[in-house]
Amino acid sequence: MSITVALAQVNLMVGDIEGNAERVMRCAERLRGKADLAVFPELTLTGYPPEDLLLRPACDVRVNAALREIARVASGITLVLGYPVTRDGLRYNAAGVLRDGVVAAEYLKMKLPNYSVFDERRYFEPGTNAVVFEQGGVRFGVTICEDVWFDVPVQRAASAGAEVLLNLNASPFYQHKAEEREKLVGERASRFGVSVVYVNLVGGQDELVFDGGSFVLDRRGEICHRAPFFEESETLVTLDRGVPKPANVEPVLDELEQVYGALVTGTRDYVAKNGFSSVVLGLSGGIDSALTLTIAVDALGAKSVEAVSMPSRYTAQLSNDEARRQAERMGVDFQSIPIESVFQAFLDTLTDTFAGTEPDLTEENIQARSRGIILMAISNKRGRMLLTTGNKSEMSVGYATLYGDMAGGFAPLKDVPKTLVYRLAHWRNRNGEVIPQAVIDRPPSAELRADQKDADSLPDYAVLDPILARYVEEDQAVDEIVAAGFDRATVERVTRMVDRSEYKRRQAPPGVKITRRAYGRDRRYPIVNGF
Amino acid sequence: MSITVALAQVNLMVGDIEGNAERVMRCAERLRGKADLAVFPELTLTGYPPEDLLLRPACDVRVNAALREIARVASGITLVLGYPVTRDGLRYNAAGVLRDGVVAAEYLKMKLPNYSVFDERRYFEPGTNAVVFEQGGVRFGVTICEDVWFDVPVQRAASAGAEVLLNLNASPFYQHKAEEREKLVGERASRFGVSVVYVNLVGGQDELVFDGGSFVLDRRGEICHRAPFFEESETLVTLDRGVPKPANVEPVLDELEQVYGALVTGTRDYVAKNGFSSVVLGLSGGIDSALTLTIAVDALGAKSVEAVSMPSRYTAQLSNDEARRQAERMGVDFQSIPIESVFQAFLDTLTDTFAGTEPDLTEENIQARSRGIILMAISNKRGRMLLTTGNKSEMSVGYATLYGDMAGGFAPLKDVPKTLVYRLAHWRNRNGEVIPQAVIDRPPSAELRADQKDADSLPDYAVLDPILARYVEEDQAVDEIVAAGFDRATVERVTRMVDRSEYKRRQAPPGVKITRRAYGRDRRYPIVNGF
Repeated sequence: MSITVALAQVNLMVGDIEGNAERVMRCAERLRGKADLAVFPELTLTGYPPEDLLLRPACDVRVNAALREIARVASGITLVLGYPVTRDGLRYNAAGVLRDGVVAAEYLKMKLPNYSVFDERRYFEPGTNAVVFEQGGVRFGVTICEDVWFDVPVQRAASAGAEVLLNLNASPFYQHKAEEREKLVGERASRFGVSVVYVNLVGGQDELVFDGGSFVLDRRGEICHRAPFFEESETLVTLDRGVPKPANVEPVLDELEQVYGALVTGTRDYVAKNGFSSVVLGLSGGIDSALTLTIAVDALGAKSVEAVSMPSRYTAQLSNDEARRQAERMGVDFQSIPIESVFQAFLDTLTDTFAGTEPDLTEENIQARSRGIILMAISNKRGRMLLTTGNKSEMSVGYATLYGDMAGGFAPLKDVPKTLVYRLAHWRNRNGEVIPQAVIDRPPSAELRADQKDADSLPDYAVLDPILARYVEEDQAVDEIVAAGFDRATVERVTRMVDRSEYKRRQAPPGVKITRRAYGRDRRYPIVNGF
Repeated sequence: MSITVALAQVNLMVGDIEGNAERVMRCAERLRGKADLAVFPELTLTGYPPEDLLLRPACDVRVNAALREIARVASGITLVLGYPVTRDGLRYNAAGVLRDGVVAAEYLKMKLPNYSVFDERRYFEPGTNAVVFEQGGVRFGVTICEDVWFDVPVQRAASAGAEVLLNLNASPFYQHKAEEREKLVGERASRFGVSVVYVNLVGGQDELVFDGGSFVLDRRGEICHRAPFFEESETLVTLDRGVPKPANVEPVLDELEQVYGALVTGTRDYVAKNGFSSVVLGLSGGIDSALTLTIAVDALGAKSVEAVSMPSRYTAQLSNDEARRQAERMGVDFQSIPIESVFQAFLDTLTDTFAGTEPDLTEENIQARSRGIILMAISNKRGRMLLTTGNKSEMSVGYATLYGDMAGGFAPLKDVPKTLVYRLAHWRNRNGEVIPQAVIDRPPSAELRADQKDADSLPDYAVLDPILARYVEEDQAVDEIVAAGFDRATVERVTRMVDRSEYKRRQAPPGVKITRRAYGRDRRYPIVNGF
């Protein structure tokens, strides 16, 4: 006796309850006759994370209406999907089993993550009871995301007789997450002797990317099926007397392919889900904007991308040439808009005000901000979202100009350290040079004064990035970092720069989380901070 | 037999563990001989809220060292103070009773707020046990902040024999909070028959202001003592056989005095605690910047404030005259820097790029952003923090230019609706005109094109503000707001504007929370949002 389960790995829209319900119903229509059971991601109807939309009483009303609609089409196929539910004035993160026109069973998530980017205790109470339902002679347990990272929920499901666990997820990407996930779920499967159908969300939502890669493990924890990463899919797995039969196993992507896939997905979805169809960015002839351009083109297509070079009196000819070369090679709109006359107009306007002072960072910032105004003007005039091109190393130490190069709607590289920017640039060139080699080879420079180099203000990125990873992602103290072999003066200077730049990061646009700890919801630091 | 308790209402520095410990020890020295017991605010040593600093292992190490130092001076006086503590790998929000050189008792907070601006479940586990200690024949219970908003912690303390409850707080201000607090604590006092010594933090921390107003209630819930608002104080209350004797009762401030006090305190502390001693702001001749100027002067003194008027071709003469008049009246540095030449330079630079298009919002934004650059240049050159002057109504509907009038380090009026801006301006003029009457009387305008008025783009503020309060602060749905008597088309337009402006708010500087729900940590909305 066999039963077929569909893993509905869908890309949903946060807050669009009716639209997400429509997606579920269309999926049910398509799968009826092919699958007995379809499993959707966590909080299917609201998308994830719905954040404070959950606090709106209208959210409940609309979810309940959508659920009734979906229940009506739940015949000939069982649908397992996620939604928020309120019982006796308390809200839960629920998974409903819809069949024969009704919600036949409802599981309430037990383990509510409240760390990193997660705020589930802000919204939900924990459930306590296992839910097991029977279909086609197989007993299915239901759990939600974080639940399978702990023993108790799985143990309760197994004790209640579950042979196969359906786990609904909204598990955001960071480096190596896919491997970590399967290992952990595999341990749970073998420990409690249950097969696991793990269905993940796919797509970008603000700073998060859900990478898909849904999978099925047997009761020994061995992989039977893996869905693709970073794309929607409806894959089928047949259970024979509760035992999953081997199906297609997509490969796990290598490290750089994973990260690049997340950057492209996050950028594409942020732009499109905010109602934009094209972007503009400043192309400086440096490596950050060069990589941002390839991400933009891979996400949206060359026709939807405009690149602007904005040379100043300090811009090397190499910068102009290589920017133009890459733009032409990639087939994007390109123009060069010199900033000299606006820069000079600011200097003239401020002559009296600044009389008797020496040029300093002020004049550098005026240039960066003049570029910000020009790019925002193009964004406003043509309805194109401005992508900002800064990387995580700069964002960490504040080596960026607020309202200047930090201006923009989205920052694809915000969580990508500079050393990883280089590795990704090499990787993107693997099938032929897209990013000019000269851009990769030149020493990094902001070109905001004569002969300026990043190395004048910052340690080498090969030294800076590991210090930043230890301080920002691993919470190490100065002494620990020094003990690991770094120069004390450098560590003290770097960590001080990180602390003092929080005010800039607070005004930065969102970007794609790809590390274990990104700036944004993931790292909540005070600005006023005497630590 | 009597015992004297000191309410140490102090202004602490988040993260400065050693500095805060030093404050406690100096206070102990001063009070020894005058008080038997001194009570400090919640999380005294880290300040509140320490946010993700709590995740740094170094935090624990430094707190423990500070605690040992303080315990050494705890002789001849008992100190009750707050700090984070880790037990068996779990972190708690603790209050320690330090006397005779040791931590004699330690209470672990039971009720951990995880709503509004609070994230305590992100950091802490809840405690379960009451702590009661005896001194001078009186049995004191200890609780922390949120605990007294619930019955259970107070009940447990009372059951364990507490006659007087010492409650350590970091209770942030919003309108009418002081009244609400005393009413609620009074209910708890009378229900469980305990007197309450309620010690609050005072001062600003990023978006929060702690308003002080510490108080003592007797077991009937009647007020015996109230400390001043918005300033540090060490006041003494004597307990006679556990019964508080009447002491000085400071008046509760009226509504506008409360709000204005919060704005001044929040601005002063944000500027000073970030290491700045002066500010600069754009003074447009409109009411928002006029009120921001009075706040800045009241917070920092006239000598620390610089006002800049930046007229364009669309600026009325009235704006220039009244800006200058107010600046002179208040005795602040003032200069006028016309933006015409930089504006024209941008238009010239973009002539080719924008050929064949009509002027639109783009050109308006270029003006606002040119002003942003000039103000940031002054900020950079002179080391003055830029205050931005926008109000909550504008911030709600996105009637503000990102990187333009939104540029700045701090936004004093960010949570103040426009109608309240008017009331505060009248109130600030109560002892003589400071804000020119012509500024109050003129119709609001951004002056970014000829004859522009806010009323061309927005409903009257008298209509807009109540719609916003219902939608943003009370989570009402469109239908509910319409049912309350507002025009449907207007409500739909306004709520759509709020939803679509989230991306701007995400890049806005912090400001002082004065309403029940401010933008920032208090309202966590997705940017990509199909609700």
